[in-house]
Amino acid sequence: MAQKPSIPKGTRDFSPVEMARRNYIFDTIREVFRLYGFRQIETPAMENLSTLMGKYGEEGDKLLFKILNSGNYLKSTDHELLNAEEPSGRLTSQLCEKGLRYDLTVPFARYVVMHRNELQLPFKRFQIQPVWRADRPQKGRYREFYQCDADIVGSDSLVNEIELLQIIDEVFSRLGIRIAIKLNNRKVLAGIAELIGAPDKLIDITVAIDKIDKIGIDNVVVELRERGLSDDAVERLRPILAISGSLDERLSALSSLLADTPVGVAGVEELRAVVSGVESLGMKAQLDLDVSLARGLNYYTGTIIEVKALDVQIGSITGGGRYDNLTGVFGMPGLSGVGISFGADRIYDVLNTLDLYPENTSAASKVIFLNLGADESTVSLKAAKMLRASGIAAEVYPDTVKMKKQMAYADAMRIPFVAIIGETELESGTVTLKDMEAGNQEAVALDDLVARLS
Amino acid sequence: MAQKPSIPKGTRDFSPVEMARRNYIFDTIREVFRLYGFRQIETPAMENLSTLMGKYGEEGDKLLFKILNSGNYLKSTDHELLNAEEPSGRLTSQLCEKGLRYDLTVPFARYVVMHRNELQLPFKRFQIQPVWRADRPQKGRYREFYQCDADIVGSDSLVNEIELLQIIDEVFSRLGIRIAIKLNNRKVLAGIAELIGAPDKLIDITVAIDKIDKIGIDNVVVELRERGLSDDAVERLRPILAISGSLDERLSALSSLLADTPVGVAGVEELRAVVSGVESLGMKAQLDLDVSLARGLNYYTGTIIEVKALDVQIGSITGGGRYDNLTGVFGMPGLSGVGISFGADRIYDVLNTLDLYPENTSAASKVIFLNLGADESTVSLKAAKMLRASGIAAEVYPDTVKMKKQMAYADAMRIPFVAIIGETELESGTVTLKDMEAGNQEAVALDDLVARLS
Repeated sequence: MAQKPSIPKGTRDFSPVEMARRNYIFDTIREVFRLYGFRQIETPAMENLSTLMGKYGEEGDKLLFKILNSGNYLKSTDHELLNAEEPSGRLTSQLCEKGLRYDLTVPFARYVVMHRNELQLPFKRFQIQPVWRADRPQKGRYREFYQCDADIVGSDSLVNEIELLQIIDEVFSRLGIRIAIKLNNRKVLAGIAELIGAPDKLIDITVAIDKIDKIGIDNVVVELRERGLSDDAVERLRPILAISGSLDERLSALSSLLADTPVGVAGVEELRAVVSGVESLGMKAQLDLDVSLARGLNYYTGTIIEVKALDVQIGSITGGGRYDNLTGVFGMPGLSGVGISFGADRIYDVLNTLDLYPENTSAASKVIFLNLGADESTVSLKAAKMLRASGIAAEVYPDTVKMKKQMAYADAMRIPFVAIIGETELESGTVTLKDMEAGNQEAVALDDLVARLS
Repeated sequence: MAQKPSIPKGTRDFSPVEMARRNYIFDTIREVFRLYGFRQIETPAMENLSTLMGKYGEEGDKLLFKILNSGNYLKSTDHELLNAEEPSGRLTSQLCEKGLRYDLTVPFARYVVMHRNELQLPFKRFQIQPVWRADRPQKGRYREFYQCDADIVGSDSLVNEIELLQIIDEVFSRLGIRIAIKLNNRKVLAGIAELIGAPDKLIDITVAIDKIDKIGIDNVVVELRERGLSDDAVERLRPILAISGSLDERLSALSSLLADTPVGVAGVEELRAVVSGVESLGMKAQLDLDVSLARGLNYYTGTIIEVKALDVQIGSITGGGRYDNLTGVFGMPGLSGVGISFGADRIYDVLNTLDLYPENTSAASKVIFLNLGADESTVSLKAAKMLRASGIAAEVYPDTVKMKKQMAYADAMRIPFVAIIGETELESGTVTLKDMEAGNQEAVALDDLVARLS
């Protein structure tokens, strides 16, 4: 009868201590978004599959979690499809109308189009919600995880890029994580493709050179040849991939190499404007140009942004860029946008690895009143009420059990103060207050308790 | 090609203003939970169907959203079941291993059992997350909605009931909603069943008398007869349903009527202890005894709590009670618990109806800098950075477009101050600050801006 319970693979429970730490991250990101005038929205966990399908490539379609129709889900299915060896996409769409959101970007685009008449452009929104992917679970990769996105749509000014980079700098500076921000621009990539005489191979080039960090320049060259690039084109590409020096030097070198491609020059100019804008405002983060940065996603049309932690070996912890046709697929073309997405789960791993949580990131009350009987706990409940009215988290041990057991609870919960009201204290109108860290205790008048613990 | 997007019926998007209002509710509830020493957990949106099925009755099983297995979901299905007219439960469990959580109580029970070795009892947890039900959507009933639950497990002390009632009182007092808290006790219901000679009909009695508010005492009597209660039993029940007077008078009357049933007397004693405990601490909310209160759910074993708004016609906005065997079904018997659940969506409706949001519940920045050109916006970006460092939300209009358009944006966003840095201001190191509500404007030195807007 009794089952041994478990949770689906790739999902997690979060304990009180883990929640306190996660909330510290979410609160930090939310506060910085708010300071920059971004406004929060939320969208439903379930979207129509017609909204989600075809937006993440063929692989993405497979990784969507699909929700079985309610009621008689067999009614509109095709018997031939049902009796096939393998389920077809058509059968799946007969069985399921809805799916769980895969990211926050497509639901945001859907939101903008549906609410176009209420929205004031430019629209600066942020969104912090979980997403679901039927990926094979592995270390650091989950089937349910949070994204924290900020986007501006309806403005193509580079001021937006500058502010998003400031937000990245501010969030990681508040969290105490040292980072490098890598920048690139899709127009630079287009310029490169044009320069080497393979403008139609832009996607092949970006996909291949995106791997330069992982597999090295020589393997990238092999891959580019396999993807049909001529020897001549590959040789023209090499000097660009080998650009070195300071950020300014690299921008200059790139500018010279791309001088004959107007789109490439435009890309370098945008990079320069963003870099100089950010630098004039002051940045803690290290800023890098990385012409191999493409972030796989082919919807970026301008600036591309990626953030790496300097002190922990982990994938990118934030990314983003400019896109020019996010809402086109939903019938609203020509809306430019730029956005970033903080990877809360990886940031959580980085903070854990570096042990960077502030001291007060715990889930504990400030004080617990031990329970020594009915009359005593009545007074404790009143004292606790008084403390809470002053914003001090207080609890009363509910059961009149052995003091040792109650102290063990206080200790395990890491509650900093234990308040004892027994017979003596009842008579004298005091409370014995034990400082759990220092180990000492003192008698405090009930009326002074709020001041003592504030 | 372009689709007209929509969202699944019964689900909602939340706009920035709606989010600000919802966050006001969640933040209020979360802060009160925290002050009482409750600690937050989160559980995954998806649970194994084996965890969820059979916990909410036959109807509940149908209302679960089920997630189609990934990969070849036809592989382990039974062809006979696939070709049936109607899908069977067995087929559904072959197609789906996982479902979306239906409430926060069952996942909490599952959590307690899975983490029993890490938990310190009593465990005071709160949880604020969405739940999903494939109910027929209607006004005020959604397929995705939030629950805000606080429970204590591992303690049968009535101190817990008292604190939960204090929490209810505090939350609604902070929100400005006048409420009545209805109380009952399952033992009183058991006493009544025994008194009228129908102890085996306890469930029938509770289900029927739960409807007394909706259908009236006479129709409840008809229903009780249909459920097999004798005329004699029904006549014994009438005086109990007709008890009136003050809370104390009603408790006394009930005590006399139930004097011959030990379980009934125990129930009245628990009610008395809870009421007197709460009253000695002081309560803003009106406290009522309601012997017709059963809350449908048959897992309550002691105190039963339900909250009604006094100034709006709407169903219960919070409910809860004590249960004694929540974790038994997962192999951990004998753990007593008591909990409450705030219905955030109904509370949202009440606040909207009464227009009780505080003035500052908006999603807006405090100030927006207009964009009059590249040099000007560089100075604006610096000034905005300075303001944000002091915790003041500020934004810079990203595009250099007509001032009228920028002012229209500021107005639509309800941003209280507009800051203008043009050529004159650049030269004098000032900013022209326009108070959008008062309509006047003044020149402020850049260095004084933080102080002026603090």
